[in-house]
Amino acid sequence: MSDLELRARERDAADPLAAVRARFVLDEAVYLDGNSLGALPAAVPGRMEDVVRRQWGSLRIRSWDESGWWTAPERIGDRIAPLVGAAPGQIVVGDSTSVNVFKALVAAVRLARGTAGAEGGRDEIVVDATTFPTDGYIAGSAARMTGCTLRPVAPAEVPDALGDRTAAVLLNHVDYRTGRLHDLPGLTAAVHAAGAVAVWDLCHSAGALPVGLDEHGVDLAVGCTYKYLNGGPGSPAYLYVRRELQDRFDSPLPGWNSHAEPFGMRADYEPAAGAPRGRVGTPDILSMLALEAALEVWDGVSVDAVRAKSLALTDFFLECVAAYAPEGAVESLTPAAHAERGSQVALRCPDAGEVMKRLIASGVVGDYRPPDVLRFGFTPLYVGFADAERAARILADTLS
Amino acid sequence: MSDLELRARERDAADPLAAVRARFVLDEAVYLDGNSLGALPAAVPGRMEDVVRRQWGSLRIRSWDESGWWTAPERIGDRIAPLVGAAPGQIVVGDSTSVNVFKALVAAVRLARGTAGAEGGRDEIVVDATTFPTDGYIAGSAARMTGCTLRPVAPAEVPDALGDRTAAVLLNHVDYRTGRLHDLPGLTAAVHAAGAVAVWDLCHSAGALPVGLDEHGVDLAVGCTYKYLNGGPGSPAYLYVRRELQDRFDSPLPGWNSHAEPFGMRADYEPAAGAPRGRVGTPDILSMLALEAALEVWDGVSVDAVRAKSLALTDFFLECVAAYAPEGAVESLTPAAHAERGSQVALRCPDAGEVMKRLIASGVVGDYRPPDVLRFGFTPLYVGFADAERAARILADTLS
Repeated sequence: MSDLELRARERDAADPLAAVRARFVLDEAVYLDGNSLGALPAAVPGRMEDVVRRQWGSLRIRSWDESGWWTAPERIGDRIAPLVGAAPGQIVVGDSTSVNVFKALVAAVRLARGTAGAEGGRDEIVVDATTFPTDGYIAGSAARMTGCTLRPVAPAEVPDALGDRTAAVLLNHVDYRTGRLHDLPGLTAAVHAAGAVAVWDLCHSAGALPVGLDEHGVDLAVGCTYKYLNGGPGSPAYLYVRRELQDRFDSPLPGWNSHAEPFGMRADYEPAAGAPRGRVGTPDILSMLALEAALEVWDGVSVDAVRAKSLALTDFFLECVAAYAPEGAVESLTPAAHAERGSQVALRCPDAGEVMKRLIASGVVGDYRPPDVLRFGFTPLYVGFADAERAARILADTLS
Repeated sequence: MSDLELRARERDAADPLAAVRARFVLDEAVYLDGNSLGALPAAVPGRMEDVVRRQWGSLRIRSWDESGWWTAPERIGDRIAPLVGAAPGQIVVGDSTSVNVFKALVAAVRLARGTAGAEGGRDEIVVDATTFPTDGYIAGSAARMTGCTLRPVAPAEVPDALGDRTAAVLLNHVDYRTGRLHDLPGLTAAVHAAGAVAVWDLCHSAGALPVGLDEHGVDLAVGCTYKYLNGGPGSPAYLYVRRELQDRFDSPLPGWNSHAEPFGMRADYEPAAGAPRGRVGTPDILSMLALEAALEVWDGVSVDAVRAKSLALTDFFLECVAAYAPEGAVESLTPAAHAERGSQVALRCPDAGEVMKRLIASGVVGDYRPPDVLRFGFTPLYVGFADAERAARILADTLS
């Protein structure tokens, strides 16, 4: 047994989160794609059977009240809240991330303009130029429909791009491709100093590291729940609206679920108070209640412990790759500094698509992002140090 | 046994759809709320278990390809297509009805304006004044964001309200409260004669009666799948874009799933061809695949047969109510003429909310819509004539 293998064993034995792995359904593969689709939490199949057979099949329409279907978006939002540093009553679950980006950005422009409206002069939406594409596409639509210009800016240059014309800024907490962690507190403060509204996309950070939405004064945030939150394929996204802004949150998608009196069936629209104002239509209950069951894996788990293990895992994986892989075969895009690293390692190499296919065939599941990136996501709840060592070893074999 | 009970037995014995009832999970209650939440199709629980345990739990990320997750929105759209009279390749499933109303209406305004843009003078959205509220709320937002005025008009008066300023018209095929069936072919022709774009909401007609989207030249349509399509609580809605309009369909929600090359991760947006252009974000796979399993109940079932039974059932129920209920205790809001009737019966009575509670306690499940309406939905796939007779008898007892 090599030194790295031995050290992996020791660290797994000392890992305070090691027992959490049993809360998931896993097999012999090393699953490093939890940053795309989290593994199945063991509580989900039984819960789904109950939801389908008893709640839908037997109680039917009564379940909207009796099984708590109607209030699920706020209730599950409150379950996510501590994972992203939010007090209760500020998050609703529902719709896709893309739809929530639209709600948040249009509402952000309206907040920035306030009573001045479009005449107030704030006519730019700044968006991370390296963003996952959907955020840019949706930001383009939000800009078009609010009379703004879309301005793509690299995150490091955002502070210099801000000014009197900036209405809203949409940023990613962690870059989907490189795994770079951006400076949420500093950038949020810069956006506020310019009088603009800060919208954060937490898809690649929530569940992997502390976010601190309340603490850092973030205005609006969105995120998906199928990566580090393990909610299942296409599980609903969420929207955070800071409490002080809720009364002025003016949604471009004012569906009946966001009405103050949804069953009043009134022709006039009166928005609900609080987080439910971010709702739109009837929630997708099956996907949503699978997510609720999935969130039980967090019982007794602290995000700080997850962060500590995440950094230790990615450090160790990079060390193993450096030790095993042929010199110069891969180049890490992931920042070495902890303060700039999310919970994934991105490695550049030629033929990355082919390399990933071979890796998957050898039982190491990551994914490929064009043009030349191998992504390895480390979910501290179910990935261990021996997994990291094995993945690096098999990667090195594949590259040789 | 009364004459009506005898006739109910005879009609059930002669019902060509009687055997379809076995494709659902039902109990001794008379379930007349399928126009709110359809009953559980028997194929769903097993399918969901496979989706959760094998597709998600075992195949994990591979299922996006290997289990057909990625193409589910179009594939399931094509499964719905024959039920609403659409050729394949024009429907995608995903998002809520409210979100799809937004996509359809904004796109409709853009289609109506064409290259003339907002300067072309078309600046009104006409909406059914008696609509289910969410359509009106969302139409208000679509109007606000496209520089239009929202004009609520009773469906019968729509032809007179149309003109050079009309951009888009949003109508309900069947009224959610009264069950009135509107004249889709005639109103669509009137909208087209005015040079405007017709958007139909099929929530209360799809799966209950022939719609004929292609035949009648409907431009855009939306609908939910949890009523007569039995897709489960909050199952995803769908969007129909007529083939000839697809190349000009300009979505206000251009998420990455609607991109021509979604995995190219390109910064510039290029819309996909065909129905996928109506997609937005990652589809909610659990809810979506439950719907796919639910649609199997339609194998070998013709919508014409469903319509024939639906009219016979609602006729028979009204006859039984007239025979059993105290004189003047209820008043039917449902049109007597078949050409104006959907698949529900709406009865007005004092204290309707209380009456419905007592009915439900007696095993007859309908629902209540304010201020004074009892709604009874008849899903011909699983409701029989003896159910209708029993419901009327228990209603009469409750009213006495």
